[in-house]
Amino acid sequence: MLRRPLPYAAALSTACLLTLCALCAPEAHGDEGMWTFDHLPLAQLKERYGFEPTPDWLLHVQRSVVSTGGGTGAFVSADGLVLTNHHVALGQLQKMSTRENDYVRDGFFARTAAEEIPCPDQELVVLWSMENVTARVSAAMAKGTTNEERNRLRNAELARLQQASTKTTGLMTRTVELYQGGEYWLYRYRTYKDVRLVCAPEERMAFYGGDWDNFEFPRHDLDFTIYRVYENGKPLRPEHWLRWSATGAKDGDLTMLAGHPGRTNRLRTSSQLAYERDVERPLRIHMQEMRLAAYQKYAGRGPEQARQAVSALRGLENNLKRERGFLALLRDPQFFATKQAQEADLRARLAANAGLNARYGDAWDHVAAAQAVLRERGRSRTLREMGRVSSLADMAGNLVQMAAELEKPNEKRLRDFRDSNLPSLRFRLLSRAPVVKEMEEAIFAAHLQVCLDSLGAGDAFVQAALEGRTPAEVARELFAGTRLADVAERQRLLDGGRAAIESSTDPLIVWARRVDVPNREMRRWFEDHVESVEAVEGARIAEARFAVYGHRVAPDATGTLRLSYGQRKGYPELETLVPSQTTFYGLYDRAASFDHQPPFDLPRRVLDAEPRVKLSTPLNFVNTTESVGGSSGSPVLDRKGELVGLTFDGNIHSFLWTFISAEAKSRSVAVDSRAILEALRNIYGMGALADELERGDR
Amino acid sequence: MLRRPLPYAAALSTACLLTLCALCAPEAHGDEGMWTFDHLPLAQLKERYGFEPTPDWLLHVQRSVVSTGGGTGAFVSADGLVLTNHHVALGQLQKMSTRENDYVRDGFFARTAAEEIPCPDQELVVLWSMENVTARVSAAMAKGTTNEERNRLRNAELARLQQASTKTTGLMTRTVELYQGGEYWLYRYRTYKDVRLVCAPEERMAFYGGDWDNFEFPRHDLDFTIYRVYENGKPLRPEHWLRWSATGAKDGDLTMLAGHPGRTNRLRTSSQLAYERDVERPLRIHMQEMRLAAYQKYAGRGPEQARQAVSALRGLENNLKRERGFLALLRDPQFFATKQAQEADLRARLAANAGLNARYGDAWDHVAAAQAVLRERGRSRTLREMGRVSSLADMAGNLVQMAAELEKPNEKRLRDFRDSNLPSLRFRLLSRAPVVKEMEEAIFAAHLQVCLDSLGAGDAFVQAALEGRTPAEVARELFAGTRLADVAERQRLLDGGRAAIESSTDPLIVWARRVDVPNREMRRWFEDHVESVEAVEGARIAEARFAVYGHRVAPDATGTLRLSYGQRKGYPELETLVPSQTTFYGLYDRAASFDHQPPFDLPRRVLDAEPRVKLSTPLNFVNTTESVGGSSGSPVLDRKGELVGLTFDGNIHSFLWTFISAEAKSRSVAVDSRAILEALRNIYGMGALADELERGDR
Repeated sequence: MLRRPLPYAAALSTACLLTLCALCAPEAHGDEGMWTFDHLPLAQLKERYGFEPTPDWLLHVQRSVVSTGGGTGAFVSADGLVLTNHHVALGQLQKMSTRENDYVRDGFFARTAAEEIPCPDQELVVLWSMENVTARVSAAMAKGTTNEERNRLRNAELARLQQASTKTTGLMTRTVELYQGGEYWLYRYRTYKDVRLVCAPEERMAFYGGDWDNFEFPRHDLDFTIYRVYENGKPLRPEHWLRWSATGAKDGDLTMLAGHPGRTNRLRTSSQLAYERDVERPLRIHMQEMRLAAYQKYAGRGPEQARQAVSALRGLENNLKRERGFLALLRDPQFFATKQAQEADLRARLAANAGLNARYGDAWDHVAAAQAVLRERGRSRTLREMGRVSSLADMAGNLVQMAAELEKPNEKRLRDFRDSNLPSLRFRLLSRAPVVKEMEEAIFAAHLQVCLDSLGAGDAFVQAALEGRTPAEVARELFAGTRLADVAERQRLLDGGRAAIESSTDPLIVWARRVDVPNREMRRWFEDHVESVEAVEGARIAEARFAVYGHRVAPDATGTLRLSYGQRKGYPELETLVPSQTTFYGLYDRAASFDHQPPFDLPRRVLDAEPRVKLSTPLNFVNTTESVGGSSGSPVLDRKGELVGLTFDGNIHSFLWTFISAEAKSRSVAVDSRAILEALRNIYGMGALADELERGDR
Repeated sequence: MLRRPLPYAAALSTACLLTLCALCAPEAHGDEGMWTFDHLPLAQLKERYGFEPTPDWLLHVQRSVVSTGGGTGAFVSADGLVLTNHHVALGQLQKMSTRENDYVRDGFFARTAAEEIPCPDQELVVLWSMENVTARVSAAMAKGTTNEERNRLRNAELARLQQASTKTTGLMTRTVELYQGGEYWLYRYRTYKDVRLVCAPEERMAFYGGDWDNFEFPRHDLDFTIYRVYENGKPLRPEHWLRWSATGAKDGDLTMLAGHPGRTNRLRTSSQLAYERDVERPLRIHMQEMRLAAYQKYAGRGPEQARQAVSALRGLENNLKRERGFLALLRDPQFFATKQAQEADLRARLAANAGLNARYGDAWDHVAAAQAVLRERGRSRTLREMGRVSSLADMAGNLVQMAAELEKPNEKRLRDFRDSNLPSLRFRLLSRAPVVKEMEEAIFAAHLQVCLDSLGAGDAFVQAALEGRTPAEVARELFAGTRLADVAERQRLLDGGRAAIESSTDPLIVWARRVDVPNREMRRWFEDHVESVEAVEGARIAEARFAVYGHRVAPDATGTLRLSYGQRKGYPELETLVPSQTTFYGLYDRAASFDHQPPFDLPRRVLDAEPRVKLSTPLNFVNTTESVGGSSGSPVLDRKGELVGLTFDGNIHSFLWTFISAEAKSRSVAVDSRAILEALRNIYGMGALADELERGDR
């Protein structure tokens, strides 16, 4: 394998600088924004592209798109087929694979319905309806006299609204905060828990070129996986699903992307960005580097261990490349000045209006003060986020907290344990996915070591977690002794409630009880001193922004459904042009040009198929349509609402999109819909599935 | 055609910055240097690659390589075939093409010896032997008491040595100055003037991707042309020619490049580089931009005019891209500081040795003083260089100067008119190449306009050139009235000597007589105030360098034969890897990815051939072996001395090589020898020629 010899932050930073000239130009404003479906820039769409989506068009798209929890997908047939990315499905594929049947390495191809196999813990949700409850939340908050009070009133009101919605509609309901507190919504979802695997290419083809080519273009990836949703043992007949485009997108065509972008920080204040730059991101990078090293060490134990670690390694490599990119941007003085200038512009316009200024002018100072407070304990808070370190530790923590929370009234619970969220949580807690305890122990120990090294032995969490022992000793004891890998044991603890948890001697449960004390203290501290300020002052800043600019800005991404639009378009790079697409010719070229060395080698099946493949078939394409992490798996739509591509990545310049709208060289990268059909038919022998996709039913 | 929308100096400058970290690292010293054949780094070659070329190996390579005058080529068969670049041959192809037979656009394919057609004015020379005459020149110079005197004595001694060599050996002899005056040599050449065109691809294939992809990699060019040299009406049977490699070069293989790199400025002082940066290069860029605009305007008159301008347009675009790159480097403070640091290191080591310092320490100050003098009149001098503005004006100038010079003794003549140089000059003056007077007039007028605008009407040259009229009026009169396009008239003037020139009323001759007066004055001024200082002080600096560092540094390129070495090797770029080669897959990919839009379209013949072409055949490759302008057409050799590639370009980072040795990302770009055979056989139906190349004879 060609190993990455150089740290690349320098290259990235410079690459991003190249874009900045364009950013500063006033005419650079392109098709910016990831828009909520209730508030689309319809006038711009009409003016720039002559396109006017009807309410039916929008509802159809809204209800065709699914969230995988962290990623996106879409119904693409009348018989419940769902198209998403391979890397979105990778966690499931990993859990379904064994030493004998490695679907990650070899791909998976169900040629009959009987061969479709259930995912262990994949829930899909579809946004069915939305309701703006900003007035209710604001009214509740108005009764408070301090930010702490207002924040508690806000959380309680949101919990009440959520529960009422679930009761009334029967739909799983989530509360959504937009514009950093400028708007509050109820989003109601249909949920699907019987999701079966139909088809996945080899990981090499889904992630061709590996970490080297990740966030790059030109690109040559078959990053797709196809699920089928079942209900009552039969394929779901969804009311809405996307038709497959017969023609694909041409250069310059309007493209739209519907999906669940995870998080952008465009509307954050410069003090919040400075905190990210100085504390949060460097710490996360360090934590992930250590975790990556631990996984690599584990994977080095042997081929089976390497197989077990693939999904985690991919996730960490991907996150690290992105996080380093974000940090390079934030540390770029020119870029940071751009963000400061945006804030200064709003504040200057505010200052020009005495009434508005009196009302909102000091909000930024309060947020900045909260960041100063956050710097005191923020590192410890971040490192306590044990999520993804160990699935067993996560489950132990959830079981412990749940037992305590369920004894409280709904509106006083931690958000994850509100009634409306319990079915999904139970689904995850009772997952039948296999657990690799040796791997979890190794990663858990490495993470505790990071906590100890970074926070010192005196930190309350570290004290509770280690009780003076070494991370390795603690991890060994917890994972050797725990019975939580057994679903029946988790079921027992779940059913047994507080009594079962308190009497449990399972070492992981005991450990989770112990760290729950300092973690709750930290959570409360954060809510009272930071969250409360960010929520209340964030809402004031949002109001100020609406007052000055009107409603022309899209809210930051929050993992909820969005529509963005743009066009298929290449860009200049290093003195030449990057085309807006690649073809299968390019795939075979890259393999041959690297003498078939990993990660540029091709599976035997793909090599052998070459004479049958129509090499000029478009493979991947770029478009100016905005996306960020979480958008993975978003369908790319044409104006007919038909699927022309499957978003799976952004180019390196797309890192900008987390902080600003920028079109110059930022691009989303998609698998061309025609490539999926070509690969199914002429590489994978899945002609029937291709036919189903093309026809829309079986 | 996809038009270049952006100035790209910014991108370049940043791209180059990326390389700098590596430059500053002490271990970055790679296989640096373009070495003369008398002084090769044999120990390094042996140590790094285990390769020890024998004297026979070296002599064989030396005598296989040809200079085209500005470019390089090599004998590649026992029957006189010469391989060079299409872009090196482009001037000849342009001159051989007509409205009816456009060999530039359509290519040229001689399928029998009878179809091979003579080039109008292509002379090829082969370096046959070399003699170091430094001692003789130094001794002559030592007799002078001022730099002006030393410079005149030097020039006279060189003229004497040159003439004696030609008389003794019968070989055309040139004097060569190495190390900015540190060494003087006689280089003796065999010359060939009957050069016939055998095969050239379509320009689109030779220059695929046009200006966009020029100086880029990955690359997909068939930039080759094949000549055959004749002597006495029969194919030459050269004593030395290169065998075609059966295997090509693999990734990591040692590659060597033998050719005639034109000019590097690595050993120039920082004051000389500052002059380049501040005066010379910006002026040349401006001059060439104006000239390019004039050619584009002329080409816009119609398709025939566009055809006539192709060769000139390509040359100017190429020069401009390179010149802008050089200027961006020189203007980069970090890069310039690198050069200053090199100089400072040498001077610091000198200062540490009182004897050496007393002898050489002040040389840099004298050179700097000469640069200050040059700034006074340098712009006017540069703009008077009318070369390549108009072939007819060039010939008029040569005829006028020649008549005067030939009346002087050989050693007092301007260098171009020394006896040894006359046969080549006469060959060029009597070229039967067609002249497009309308085009020459347009470009000539544009250049005079630049002179007027830049120097003002008071400049002596401008006064003589315009006599108060407009550039357009002058150009109209000169080109409408001249009879120099007729070879017979040039022959008459050549034969008639001074009398014929002085009595000529041809308006271009009259004009050339007029501007010859201020031009001679300028030349004398430059020799006395700048050249003399640079020659004498340059020699002192060279001696100082030898004293401090020994002889471990290669001399700057001077258009003479050099050998450089390195390896086939990719490099990281924008976070991913550039492979060390491309394949025909990549060619068809790029065409399809750009929807076959110019300049990424393919000729019909190439499109139709796709099913026959073995697409995995390597097409172009990169290697760390140094090259600069003039290296074009250099054979890339393996350790057997066999031809594995044909150098045709450098990547964008290779611009560094003009100023420093740098391996990190700087690469030479070559056509793979296997691609030439594949294209000849399966695209162009030239199987017999491919067989001749592979076998080495017919």
